Amino acid sequence: MLKGLDPLLGPELLATLRAMGHGDELAIVDTNFPAASLGRPVIRLDGVPAPRVLDAVLSVMPLDDFVPESAWRMEVVGDPEAEMPIFSEFRHAIVARESASFRLGSLERFAFYERARQAFAVVVTGEQRLYGNILLKKGVVRPD
Amino acid sequence: MLKGLDPLLGPELLATLRAMGHGDELAIVDTNFPAASLGRPVIRLDGVPAPRVLDAVLSVMPLDDFVPESAWRMEVVGDPEAEMPIFSEFRHAIVARESASFRLGSLERFAFYERARQAFAVVVTGEQRLYGNILLKKGVVRPD
Amino acid sequence: MLKGLDPLLGPELLATLRAMGHGDELAIVDTNFPAASLGRPVIRLDGVPAPRVLDAVLSVMPLDDFVPESAWRMEVVGDPEAEMPIFSEFRHAIVARESASFRLGSLERFAFYERARQAFAVVVTGEQRLYGNILLKKGVVRPD
Amino acid sequence: MLKGLDPLLGPELLATLRAMGHGDELAIVDTNFPAASLGRPVIRLDGVPAPRVLDAVLSVMPLDDFVPESAWRMEVVGDPEAEMPIFSEFRHAIVARESASFRLGSLERFAFYERARQAFAVVVTGEQRLYGNILLKKGVVRPD
Amino acid sequence: MLKGLDPLLGPELLATLRAMGHGDELAIVDTNFPAASLGRPVIRLDGVPAPRVLDAVLSVMPLDDFVPESAWRMEVVGDPEAEMPIFSEFRHAIVARESASFRLGSLERFAFYERARQAFAVVVTGEQRLYGNILLKKGVVRPD
Amino acid sequence: MLKGLDPLLGPELLATLRAMGHGDELAIVDTNFPAASLGRPVIRLDGVPAPRVLDAVLSVMPLDDFVPESAWRMEVVGDPEAEMPIFSEFRHAIVARESASFRLGSLERFAFYERARQAFAVVVTGEQRLYGNILLKKGVVRPD
Amino acid sequence: MLKGLDPLLGPELLATLRAMGHGDELAIVDTNFPAASLGRPVIRLDGVPAPRVLDAVLSVMPLDDFVPESAWRMEVVGDPEAEMPIFSEFRHAIVARESASFRLGSLERFAFYERARQAFAVVVTGEQRLYGNILLKKGVVRPD
Amino acid sequence: MLKGLDPLLGPELLATLRAMGHGDELAIVDTNFPAASLGRPVIRLDGVPAPRVLDAVLSVMPLDDFVPESAWRMEVVGDPEAEMPIFSEFRHAIVARESASFRLGSLERFAFYERARQAFAVVVTGEQRLYGNILLKKGVVRPD
Amino acid sequence: MLKGLDPLLGPELLATLRAMGHGDELAIVDTNFPAASLGRPVIRLDGVPAPRVLDAVLSVMPLDDFVPESAWRMEVVGDPEAEMPIFSEFRHAIVARESASFRLGSLERFAFYERARQAFAVVVTGEQRLYGNILLKKGVVRPD
Amino acid sequence: MLKGLDPLLGPELLATLRAMGHGDELAIVDTNFPAASLGRPVIRLDGVPAPRVLDAVLSVMPLDDFVPESAWRMEVVGDPEAEMPIFSEFRHAIVARESASFRLGSLERFAFYERARQAFAVVVTGEQRLYGNILLKKGVVRPD
Repeated sequence: MLKGLDPLLGPELLATLRAMGHGDELAIVDTNFPAASLGRPVIRLDGVPAPRVLDAVLSVMPLDDFVPESAWRMEVVGDPEAEMPIFSEFRHAIVARESASFRLGSLERFAFYERARQAFAVVVTGEQRLYGNILLKKGVVRPD
Repeated sequence: MLKGLDPLLGPELLATLRAMGHGDELAIVDTNFPAASLGRPVIRLDGVPAPRVLDAVLSVMPLDDFVPESAWRMEVVGDPEAEMPIFSEFRHAIVARESASFRLGSLERFAFYERARQAFAVVVTGEQRLYGNILLKKGVVRPD
Repeated sequence: MLKGLDPLLGPELLATLRAMGHGDELAIVDTNFPAASLGRPVIRLDGVPAPRVLDAVLSVMPLDDFVPESAWRMEVVGDPEAEMPIFSEFRHAIVARESASFRLGSLERFAFYERARQAFAVVVTGEQRLYGNILLKKGVVRPD
Repeated sequence: MLKGLDPLLGPELLATLRAMGHGDELAIVDTNFPAASLGRPVIRLDGVPAPRVLDAVLSVMPLDDFVPESAWRMEVVGDPEAEMPIFSEFRHAIVARESASFRLGSLERFAFYERARQAFAVVVTGEQRLYGNILLKKGVVRPD
Repeated sequence: MLKGLDPLLGPELLATLRAMGHGDELAIVDTNFPAASLGRPVIRLDGVPAPRVLDAVLSVMPLDDFVPESAWRMEVVGDPEAEMPIFSEFRHAIVARESASFRLGSLERFAFYERARQAFAVVVTGEQRLYGNILLKKGVVRPD
Repeated sequence: MLKGLDPLLGPELLATLRAMGHGDELAIVDTNFPAASLGRPVIRLDGVPAPRVLDAVLSVMPLDDFVPESAWRMEVVGDPEAEMPIFSEFRHAIVARESASFRLGSLERFAFYERARQAFAVVVTGEQRLYGNILLKKGVVRPD
Repeated sequence: MLKGLDPLLGPELLATLRAMGHGDELAIVDTNFPAASLGRPVIRLDGVPAPRVLDAVLSVMPLDDFVPESAWRMEVVGDPEAEMPIFSEFRHAIVARESASFRLGSLERFAFYERARQAFAVVVTGEQRLYGNILLKKGVVRPD
Repeated sequence: MLKGLDPLLGPELLATLRAMGHGDELAIVDTNFPAASLGRPVIRLDGVPAPRVLDAVLSVMPLDDFVPESAWRMEVVGDPEAEMPIFSEFRHAIVARESASFRLGSLERFAFYERARQAFAVVVTGEQRLYGNILLKKGVVRPD
Repeated sequence: MLKGLDPLLGPELLATLRAMGHGDELAIVDTNFPAASLGRPVIRLDGVPAPRVLDAVLSVMPLDDFVPESAWRMEVVGDPEAEMPIFSEFRHAIVARESASFRLGSLERFAFYERARQAFAVVVTGEQRLYGNILLKKGVVRPD
Repeated sequence: MLKGLDPLLGPELLATLRAMGHGDELAIVDTNFPAASLGRPVIRLDGVPAPRVLDAVLSVMPLDDFVPESAWRMEVVGDPEAEMPIFSEFRHAIVARESASFRLGSLERFAFYERARQAFAVVVTGEQRLYGNILLKKGVVRPD
């Protein structure tokens, strides 16, 4: 344990978040997501809901404000306009850690996979609800 | 996810439990425990309480009934008789998954470390309470 | 050995099945199949018939119900309509573990190879009968 | 598959048997045996009974005739004279492949573990019966 | 040494031949052949003539009978019809181990290199004669 | 960069501090220190003074309050009572991040080496002053 | 420490600079730069400003005089003509170590990324100012 | 040291030359050459002039006599006809070890780089003169 | 192939002989010898008689003349004075490559194993005769 | 090549010298020395005399002035007082780079081996003269 850091941030996840730079992307995915076959480093947080992991990540990682969108969820297959309860949980976590100016974009299932295949790393959570997946683009910390 | 298996049992933990044999020991430890310096394989379950992990492990792993004791907790430093709330949570998990005939032994702090240094693997949980550590000795599954 | 799990599921195979996600595919092949040259991870179950391995895998792994077909056998070379005894053994295993709604698709020999080259892993069985090969697409486990 | 070789002898087991030399020992153990913690290379034959594996190994590997004993089983804990059905299956396999002049020695449980810790490799079978363990010492093939 | 196996078949070569499947190809080449730069696994048998290695390989490996040709030699540079003494040694080894129905095909030098670049493995012999190279396609062993 | 974390804490150092547990020790050493030959993981912070690194480490890592001393400096060779300016810089950093109740112990040069050989990791700083070395013992973070 | 060498040049950076040859390029980047995702070796100098690192590198590495430009900075996004204070610090370091004849070129943000993806290595500094990035092309040392 | 072998031929260089086959190419380059970025194995002979290394290599390695040219030097940038003193040293070494029938070809700077990127290995010498680079194509040793 | 070198000396054996220094020992052993379990690097020359390998090794490796004995054979078990035909073949090879002043020492079977466990490397030959084992101590090459 | 650095100092040697700390030792040995069997990292400088390598090393590495002796040569076997020409070459290099106050100690052959087995690394030179071996203990660089 470290002082002042969310205990969910284990050694590997902390190192990953710190090593990421401006524009690098992180995927936080549910427990059914085909994470291992993406070919990217996988960090597991079995047993922890995805919104809880999102909150821990955003407690230290800034989102990118150079671009119009820096967070994306997966769209429901066959119903791209559908709204699942977990989507608003994602939005609340973002607003609480960043600001309401960040809107949550969306990607069709296979487009989401394709994007995740370029991610810096993939965090597999214990989220059992379907569509519990989100992609984040890291921003910069400006000098004081 | 797999059918009929506790979702806490991720790929590495499942493989570890399956590879262990009769008499091999597993350490399940709290988040302050010096796990990485033991020199044994480390599996992390950040964010999950230790009794919850114990329950998941015992859902598939039998305890050893060839020996008088096959589970041990760490004793409170300077007060070996002290009883912490987590100890009874450990006992309940064992009784629920095995039987009341398994008693929970105890080891002094440094004796616990020494024993854990011989373990097959160490599971680091997100347990934040002190003394949230337990050692388990694997038993056999008898043919039908 | 673990409680309640088919003993055919060794450490590596369990970890593989658990790490696979929605849409990932597994190849279960006969002993003459060119498995090692596919470039995918190989798990061996020498001495065990393919339908027996299929049954063990389906005891924990759900098939994908988002797509019309989620299991495929290899077609007989030069006689794509031919029916070999092992094909119905495959169908019985699927019906017993999933439901009759899953039909067993088929692929021409080299198309089967090409598809297996994208698989998550390949399980080499001890099946000595020719055409003892099957590809499975993993589904999701829905929250309770 | 190769011509004239028992199909149980997979790539890794064949290479191991061929690389072993005069006096090197091989452990063939049951599915509950603590094989992975011995620190020796492990080869798995999940799903195959131990006497069947023993027969396959002896189909190519000679036993050592420079020493009085070159095969040992584990003794029943607390009853060293006890005779289990699998012991005579082991004896039959040895007689069938070598000759009746090879007697099957025995080792107490922890002495067996200690000896196995020096083995060239450990073959984990799918044998579910307890005490399904045997140690073999390799002999020489003399020039014609 | 193992009983009943050609002593030329060392640990690595045995494992390779056993791991190969239907349609996989093996290159057996002379000592001047650019084997290491093919990017395939290399097994060395320095000091042993190529026909002797071919005989040892065919003592356990079946040739493919699903295709018109399953063995190829390299053609003499600038004289594709030329017949070198080693070609008939290759043919004799094939006939002795398989049958006269297998004809020895041929490939132009650079076509041979290209094909070898796809081989499962390359066996470098001690053959000092030029053109002492042969490619083999593995067949199946049918159930009894 | 991460929000709210000292920028000196790079990916590897963060992961190391997070993976350390109760009682594990970290060595922070000057640029002449024989760090690489200790056989422990080395993390470099070339160009940064040792007290600056100490401050960054203590911004997240608690010191151990189960023991009388949890920080040690190296004694001047031949003059164990000597006080170097950097010693008080070390004390100030500790007081600022922890409390005045932590006293800075001392170890003779070769005793310091011996102790560092057991450390979890060694951080090599750019400190050019001699005796710019300190050992820290990690404490626990108690639950809220 | 070594005699006569800038102490910022640690073991890995020295080896990298020495191994680079004529025309190879080195990226020196700020702390927000997405260095790890470039796929090139990363050397960290957390806590050290970029112009200070540039000076240390140029104390031993010659710039390429076979080409019109051998150093490039990143252009400000949306304002390619903008001049940031760090740009002149870069120019001063180059002039001080080489000569005024070397002009500092510039690259648009994503062109800079693309070029850095071909670099020999990337040095991540502790530079917190945005646009604190520079690419250098190594020259030759001529014989005396 | 070995009897009868040039002492410049160290373990790695000897193994490399022996493993090369007919048509494989070796690059011998000067100390400013961008060898490490070619992506080929690098063998260093710091402190030794290139013609001395060439002589040692040709003491055991035959040149290819199946092709019109089997050795190439780099052309002077901007002056392809220029003759540098080291070129004749290369020619003398080739004539001394092979015969005058081997002519030294030439390649433009970037064509030389491209060709070296396909080489079996690169030997970096201590040659400080510019253009001290040569590519060799290995020939065959014919049976007696 | 290389000019003037015995073709039995493959890449790995050449590198090994060159890397060995004064006093390092090499074991050349028969095909039944337990080479792989010694824990030393193993080089295989399947199919080649041991005296032939000894001759190739001594064609480049000098024996040690600082000590009374620098070559040892294994004694026949139970009959240390017994003389096997291969012993004189070993003596002839030594006399032919070095001089009659080198006598062939002998070691009891298990003393030979113990000594081989300290060897630089072990060369496994195809020698099928028992006791076809020899240990060599490398000498120096003196400057001209 | 780097500006102002002896060209003998290649990437690996530079990194080694920089990573060494106060009291770490480096062995520089002749071409017959059993360097590879020491079990320490080996850096080769084939073709370069030992005194030349010593000079290059001392151009950047300070000797230890905390101890009475910080450089040792090997004594002639059987004649510990013997003075070889290379010993005075070693002394000249030390005086030229450090000062006359550093005396060259000596160690008996096997004591030298034992000491070298603890060295940080071993540099194998091309020195062909016997006894061309020296051990150096690194000192500190004091702050300005």
